[in-house]
Amino acid sequence: MGFMDHVAACNDHDARRFIPFTIRGRMVGRMRPDFAELLKPWPELFSVTRHGVALKCTDAGLAACSARVSGVLEQLIAQGELGPFHGECYAAVAEDGAEGGKEPLLLIDRAMAPCFGIRAYGQHVNGIVWSREGLKMWVSRRADDRQHYPGRLDNLAAGGLPYGLTLSENLAKECWEEAGIPEPLVRTAVSVGAVSYHMDTEKGFKSDILYCYDLELPEDFVPSCMDGEVQEFYLWPLEQVMELVRDSREFKLNCNLVIIDFLIRHGYLGPDDASYLGLLSALRPGLPPLDPVCG
Amino acid sequence: MGFMDHVAACNDHDARRFIPFTIRGRMVGRMRPDFAELLKPWPELFSVTRHGVALKCTDAGLAACSARVSGVLEQLIAQGELGPFHGECYAAVAEDGAEGGKEPLLLIDRAMAPCFGIRAYGQHVNGIVWSREGLKMWVSRRADDRQHYPGRLDNLAAGGLPYGLTLSENLAKECWEEAGIPEPLVRTAVSVGAVSYHMDTEKGFKSDILYCYDLELPEDFVPSCMDGEVQEFYLWPLEQVMELVRDSREFKLNCNLVIIDFLIRHGYLGPDDASYLGLLSALRPGLPPLDPVCG
Repeated sequence: MGFMDHVAACNDHDARRFIPFTIRGRMVGRMRPDFAELLKPWPELFSVTRHGVALKCTDAGLAACSARVSGVLEQLIAQGELGPFHGECYAAVAEDGAEGGKEPLLLIDRAMAPCFGIRAYGQHVNGIVWSREGLKMWVSRRADDRQHYPGRLDNLAAGGLPYGLTLSENLAKECWEEAGIPEPLVRTAVSVGAVSYHMDTEKGFKSDILYCYDLELPEDFVPSCMDGEVQEFYLWPLEQVMELVRDSREFKLNCNLVIIDFLIRHGYLGPDDASYLGLLSALRPGLPPLDPVCG
Repeated sequence: MGFMDHVAACNDHDARRFIPFTIRGRMVGRMRPDFAELLKPWPELFSVTRHGVALKCTDAGLAACSARVSGVLEQLIAQGELGPFHGECYAAVAEDGAEGGKEPLLLIDRAMAPCFGIRAYGQHVNGIVWSREGLKMWVSRRADDRQHYPGRLDNLAAGGLPYGLTLSENLAKECWEEAGIPEPLVRTAVSVGAVSYHMDTEKGFKSDILYCYDLELPEDFVPSCMDGEVQEFYLWPLEQVMELVRDSREFKLNCNLVIIDFLIRHGYLGPDDASYLGLLSALRPGLPPLDPVCG
């Protein structure tokens, strides 16, 4: 295996399996027809056809409309059709929106985001130490009781961006909860770009944009987990992290992309690597167009 | 104006104006029909139709075939149809080639590359200094007698990758010629990624991939130009360089992309900028597909 295998694994998506989910005529997500079918008992809220699903309660305003959708999802949870809520909301925005005009069109519980196939945003932190022996990176091992990727390796701190928090607020929150990094230190984190991917999952469609940060930590800093998400932290030479990413599936899937981007930006993975240009363009794919449903 | 205007200026391309240039059935470039017309007097070398141009001398081997094409171009130069050769060769490779298998299919003088619309590769160096007052960047002003972009601002060192030189050989050559940077210092340059763009030009189609490097220079290093390409060097605070890129057309067109990439990687341009994600994906576009020519 190699670096590109991880990028491919994160981009295992077949647009033909989805129909558009629209709000006020704008596409905000991609839905599987079997999930669309579940929404048919609420025709006052959802217009469901084989061509797509349109949200109808938009005149009610963001809060009221989101509450009604949430009510439907709660009933589907009660019926055993869906798993439980996560307890944090993501904002659905138009896929084609100019970024200045990305106003939220619907708030959806994070666990339901893939059902509606909305784009989600996250933040991942490369925690690094310049030691006498060279550059090292902090890596965490996820707790064994996590729902997603138990026991796998992870970036020092990472998390989805819930509705209502700014990027810097959420960064401070995640860095504190997952690694005990105090806020003054978090503020020295440097934003260094973003990676994206589009993946079909059991629930539907996961389309993530991960903002990446490099955070240089003092040699005597030791992370500690506050929220039970991490069972152990490691401080490894970059070369070791690089080998683990290239040769194993130890890391949580999307963390591989964040570290590959790091390796490229810091010259560990250079233009002499045959996959260099391919990796560069594959780390940030745009949303693939949906084929029109004919007939 | 703003950062995105420079990216748009570098990607002013209309694929409908071009027909494919193929070698052994593989697309290696995009040609304007008026240039294809010029090749019709050599039917033993070029098959020219309204659907595309195919090179026919491929059985002769790379050197002999390239020499014959070069002979044709010399005649067109003598007839006044084309400007002079540059004197360095670029290698034409298949657009769809897996990168490991990018063997050269034809060598073309650099000045003729846009006529055939082949992909070209270059290297650009961000020369930076960490001083007590913060991060600074060396910027050069191109000599007034340059054919391209006379008097405009440029990266400290930059150049196309000619056939026959490795990336590190060419980097050392360009850094020495353009800025007098000795080789031991050049070897500390860090490869940090690449930007790409596709642009229609007076001659045809310019499709460039620029490998980017950050080179940290000692505070007492002063660049000096060896080849007459530069009239003056400046060491400016990053904020000043950033403003110049954002608010002016002072820089040679493609240098803007290299510096925008630098600003993103170093946190000067962050996710709070409305154009952030748009810039990230626009800095590395893939080659746009050619519409089939109908009829």
